[in-house]
Amino acid sequence: MRDRNCAFDLAMKECLGERGWLTRPEDKAAHARDWLDRYGEVPLGIARPASTAEVSAIVRLCAEHGISIVPQGGNTSLNGGSVAISPASVILSMARMNRIHTIDAADFTATVEAGVVLAHLHEKLTAHNLAFPLHLGAEGSAQIGGLIGTNAGGSHAMRYGMMQDLVLGLEVVLADGTVWDGSRALIKDNAGYQLRRLFCGSEGTLGIVTKAVLRLFPAPVARATALLALPDPDAALRIGALLRASTGEFLTAVEFFNEPGLSLLLKHVPHISRPLETPGPVYLLVEIATSIPEIELPDILDRALSAAFETGDVLDGTIATSEAQRAALWRIREELPEGQRLEGRQIKHDVSVPVARLAAFVAEASAGSERVLAGVRVNPFGHLGDGNVHFNLSPPEGCTDFEEREMQLSQAVYEAAVRHGGSIAAEHGLGQAKVELADRFRSTTERSLMRQLKSTLDPHGIMNPGKVV
Amino acid sequence: MRDRNCAFDLAMKECLGERGWLTRPEDKAAHARDWLDRYGEVPLGIARPASTAEVSAIVRLCAEHGISIVPQGGNTSLNGGSVAISPASVILSMARMNRIHTIDAADFTATVEAGVVLAHLHEKLTAHNLAFPLHLGAEGSAQIGGLIGTNAGGSHAMRYGMMQDLVLGLEVVLADGTVWDGSRALIKDNAGYQLRRLFCGSEGTLGIVTKAVLRLFPAPVARATALLALPDPDAALRIGALLRASTGEFLTAVEFFNEPGLSLLLKHVPHISRPLETPGPVYLLVEIATSIPEIELPDILDRALSAAFETGDVLDGTIATSEAQRAALWRIREELPEGQRLEGRQIKHDVSVPVARLAAFVAEASAGSERVLAGVRVNPFGHLGDGNVHFNLSPPEGCTDFEEREMQLSQAVYEAAVRHGGSIAAEHGLGQAKVELADRFRSTTERSLMRQLKSTLDPHGIMNPGKVV
Repeated sequence: MRDRNCAFDLAMKECLGERGWLTRPEDKAAHARDWLDRYGEVPLGIARPASTAEVSAIVRLCAEHGISIVPQGGNTSLNGGSVAISPASVILSMARMNRIHTIDAADFTATVEAGVVLAHLHEKLTAHNLAFPLHLGAEGSAQIGGLIGTNAGGSHAMRYGMMQDLVLGLEVVLADGTVWDGSRALIKDNAGYQLRRLFCGSEGTLGIVTKAVLRLFPAPVARATALLALPDPDAALRIGALLRASTGEFLTAVEFFNEPGLSLLLKHVPHISRPLETPGPVYLLVEIATSIPEIELPDILDRALSAAFETGDVLDGTIATSEAQRAALWRIREELPEGQRLEGRQIKHDVSVPVARLAAFVAEASAGSERVLAGVRVNPFGHLGDGNVHFNLSPPEGCTDFEEREMQLSQAVYEAAVRHGGSIAAEHGLGQAKVELADRFRSTTERSLMRQLKSTLDPHGIMNPGKVV
Repeated sequence: MRDRNCAFDLAMKECLGERGWLTRPEDKAAHARDWLDRYGEVPLGIARPASTAEVSAIVRLCAEHGISIVPQGGNTSLNGGSVAISPASVILSMARMNRIHTIDAADFTATVEAGVVLAHLHEKLTAHNLAFPLHLGAEGSAQIGGLIGTNAGGSHAMRYGMMQDLVLGLEVVLADGTVWDGSRALIKDNAGYQLRRLFCGSEGTLGIVTKAVLRLFPAPVARATALLALPDPDAALRIGALLRASTGEFLTAVEFFNEPGLSLLLKHVPHISRPLETPGPVYLLVEIATSIPEIELPDILDRALSAAFETGDVLDGTIATSEAQRAALWRIREELPEGQRLEGRQIKHDVSVPVARLAAFVAEASAGSERVLAGVRVNPFGHLGDGNVHFNLSPPEGCTDFEEREMQLSQAVYEAAVRHGGSIAAEHGLGQAKVELADRFRSTTERSLMRQLKSTLDPHGIMNPGKVV
């Protein structure tokens, strides 16, 4: 075994050079564990390819030596998707493949390497008056390749769709090292099966995304952003529907959270102050945006919110009047996970339900959790506009753990989601954390279809094994 | 062989009853040939299932007897996708599975059977103030299942995407007769591979779509529609860009055609009159729409077009001031294929290029066609907003055929598309007409990936054989 690994190590070094193949313990440690430090075996080394050809060479070497390949972007997976399940693995860091090849303002496309950080792309596009409308808390670290791998969603998905809706073309290194070049900049391309859609969301288990052609949009010329305090989740659904009817095409985000979540945030994260005098119990962060210069967005939002105040569904609210205020409101939403993390132990669930079931789901999952562990603190937040709830739990006030009832608590949450026609995995993927869960909650037909696809495209099981299936 | 077919016939009759299994010559003839009467063997019979269970039973029987299954919706395929390549086939007409199960105004979803005709769905949604934003010339016949099978696009795809972007959930009968129930009404569902995206566009070769959950939108409360005459294709691209910048979120369709296409239409199709005094040579049909009550759409369109007139890129134009006028403008665009068909022989090409390359592609494909056959009449029309060109040819004036140069003409057109980064199949799929073409113009890696998927999901090759791969 040792000799075999030694031969592999030499071959990788020869192939990638000193910068491209890291095996020092501290380098491995920097990549081995997931963001929540729950998963990750120490791999044989960290491969840092600088080109698609190098990725292809790595895959061939790994195939030859029976070594697993775990692609890793920003390593922000919440389900252990980007770390290894066995030491006989290579972590493939895409960090050096971070070039933006082209930004085409006439075609509204960008061609980028997989290692481009999302926030970096956002920034570059600003100068071109263009936007790539995927936004999520981790955008400062998350890379395009990883976002494609997990079919990321985020806070603007209600308007622009998920990553799969924003990817026009892909270049993918397959399990035998051959390169599929599907990096076409076409909106309509029906020459056979929609391969790019299949790879999107496959978490590196069917191939490694090396390049993508992304769909761009005109940059918004105006935005209006409001934070509202509401009496209950049902009111939130009514306001969501009202906004959809009255702000139409401009409605970009309807995010929700609750008072316990805000309290944890205010307790733990510095430089955030209570945004409204009246406490929730439920909050909505609403944003509308347009790329049409003449539209008076504040008027449109005012009109919509006046109607909402009149019905009594809004208790209090504030509209951002500067970009700094807007950023402050978004920061509240985006730091909610951090607030909860700093409180201590937590159980995270990323689920979705049909939008109109959101309030009923939250009520049922909360009651179910309470039945399992009296006093457990419920912190649901997420994307009301698309039915995606991050239903997170903290131990009862004064307790440091869940009295070993994590499994039952999760069971209660997932069962409630499925009962309401929902999914046990909304936007974070399955990774390694949710494979069993998918086997339990999805039909054998569905799971078997997925296993068939996996074994067809990765017959030797070297592509990010233990994830998805 | 005869005995075997006889046993199959009896089994089908027993399974489906008199109404569900048609074998009279006139019934078979009604389904055997494609819309352009170019393809189609006479099948053993026409199966008309009334439920998913019946579809499943049919597939099991066909699998047992080694009979191929060709799903057929409205039979509007332009590439022979919905007719049989061999007599040992059953045509599976979905016409009886035409129920709209639910229309959910709170969730903006509709759950429908595969045999629902698109125009029928549009009509039903009107009463709910909802819209399913897929629009194409064949919508009076095309069924949801077929539209999913070919991943249909149409004239609103630039704003709303193609069918794959509008399908949230699917129910599919697989090649062994098992039913995959993925009919979830979820915007975010990342529990593994995106199976629904794989089936969308697979033309019945991987499974038979029996039910779909479709994404709906608020019905537009206002539309503004204009027809413009322009000096050349480059001006069309500039106007497209100007409209995108100035009408933003509301821009729903930018369709183009040219003077020769309009002339054929006026010559052959009754009750259509020349819409503008100034002849093209190029025309744009532009539509903007909104679901926000307070928006003054005519002002927005006026402002955009005034700017366009000033640059000299627009020679003439008309804005529809009634629904009847709007319908008349759209009828011009949608009857263009009929005008050409009635002129006699034709060669049709459905290709796409990156939007900004559209004018260059049309010029190059036109010149290439002229080199092959002097005087050949070029009639390109389609969807400028998404780069989709239906590049159609008629014989030279006074001729009735292409002097047997069909192959070279098509070659010239496809090569021009591919040279501009385009696709040989934009929105009509591959069917049986374009399988060889895909083998020629797409990489062996891509085609081999598709064949692997096909043989994994349909190991005995009974699902619509001879299509896609």
